[in-house]
Amino acid sequence: MIVRHFDEELKQLKERLLSMAGLAEQAIGKSVKALVDRDPKLALTVMNEDAIINRFEVEIEEICLTLLARYQPEAKDLRTIAMVFKIVNDLERVGDQGVNVSERTLDLLKEPLLKPLIDIPKMAVLAQQMLKDALDAFVNQDADLARAVCRRDDEVDHLNDQVYHELLVYMTKDPKTITRAIDLILIGRHLERVADHATNIAEDVYYLVKGTTIKHRLAGD
Amino acid sequence: MIVRHFDEELKQLKERLLSMAGLAEQAIGKSVKALVDRDPKLALTVMNEDAIINRFEVEIEEICLTLLARYQPEAKDLRTIAMVFKIVNDLERVGDQGVNVSERTLDLLKEPLLKPLIDIPKMAVLAQQMLKDALDAFVNQDADLARAVCRRDDEVDHLNDQVYHELLVYMTKDPKTITRAIDLILIGRHLERVADHATNIAEDVYYLVKGTTIKHRLAGD
Repeated sequence: MIVRHFDEELKQLKERLLSMAGLAEQAIGKSVKALVDRDPKLALTVMNEDAIINRFEVEIEEICLTLLARYQPEAKDLRTIAMVFKIVNDLERVGDQGVNVSERTLDLLKEPLLKPLIDIPKMAVLAQQMLKDALDAFVNQDADLARAVCRRDDEVDHLNDQVYHELLVYMTKDPKTITRAIDLILIGRHLERVADHATNIAEDVYYLVKGTTIKHRLAGD
Repeated sequence: MIVRHFDEELKQLKERLLSMAGLAEQAIGKSVKALVDRDPKLALTVMNEDAIINRFEVEIEEICLTLLARYQPEAKDLRTIAMVFKIVNDLERVGDQGVNVSERTLDLLKEPLLKPLIDIPKMAVLAQQMLKDALDAFVNQDADLARAVCRRDDEVDHLNDQVYHELLVYMTKDPKTITRAIDLILIGRHLERVADHATNIAEDVYYLVKGTTIKHRLAGD
């Protein structure tokens, strides 16, 4: 094996991480597109492609351990690698949320459309953007961007509440809508959790850069 | 600072981890007890005590980084510390699930009891036991126990499906039960996720001991 400098390997590690983040983001984008377009094939694609995200997790964790063993980094470098280790965990779970949304979508496609979807696609776009910004904040060590991501979590929570209350009205008026409404409520929650993962990452980036924490929101996960 | 041997410090680290796991387990136990006993004070206690679990996470992560920096452990020791790092993440999220159950409970207590609770307390007991066993598997490096934990995940999933279908009947018959039924469905999902966290831990323990993975179940998180 060719010996490279630590900085060079760390740079490559971050690139791998960004590739994984891109796939996780796409999983969310595709899963909601499958829902909106009523496209079961796309939903199945997301479910199959989750294996790729899972392999990235294992691979990146191994690279982290190799870097720790080979270079025994200290201080900021050590923290950066520990951070990568945590981020892959969040990203893997974002991928899982894509699978969850796809499962609910396959369920929903057995019945006619309940209502035009407006807030759920909005939530997906917001959550994906938060994820992207959280990763950018990490790569560029940008505490301000990290803090901005944390603030946007409330927007997603608010949309999720809106989704819930709107669907409650449907269910109450017509029991035949109940199973579909619950599927959509659950999809809303899955997307809310994607935003929570982005927030987790952003909180950790803020800590890494500033050395002080803006954790923990009281409500969980 | 007194210099101790690595093994001694690792042992202490594991003890801290077990203390944190005990608190996370208790959060789940208490949150479901609050639900069953219709005890809002206990639900609030769980929400307040989550801060303690969160502090444990920060503290244990710091100990891990200190051990890495001070001893530069290799091979199995390095992997063990990486594993602790991952486990605290799962435990913190278990604590969050306790908060989520408590929030739903406070909501539920505004209305009369919908139905006697049978499967949800069962799920809580199972999930807590899985968590305990996953931690024991880690501390004792017991791959068989880790595998057994993974297998029990299906039991919890099955109970959760049962909870869902039973509540669907209530909702369909009487729209006045909808909000309460949804709260209970969500509580079922929160407990299912506690079992998923236990399964995550057990999968990682299996990998640590055997060097080969039994990940990833297709369905996520």
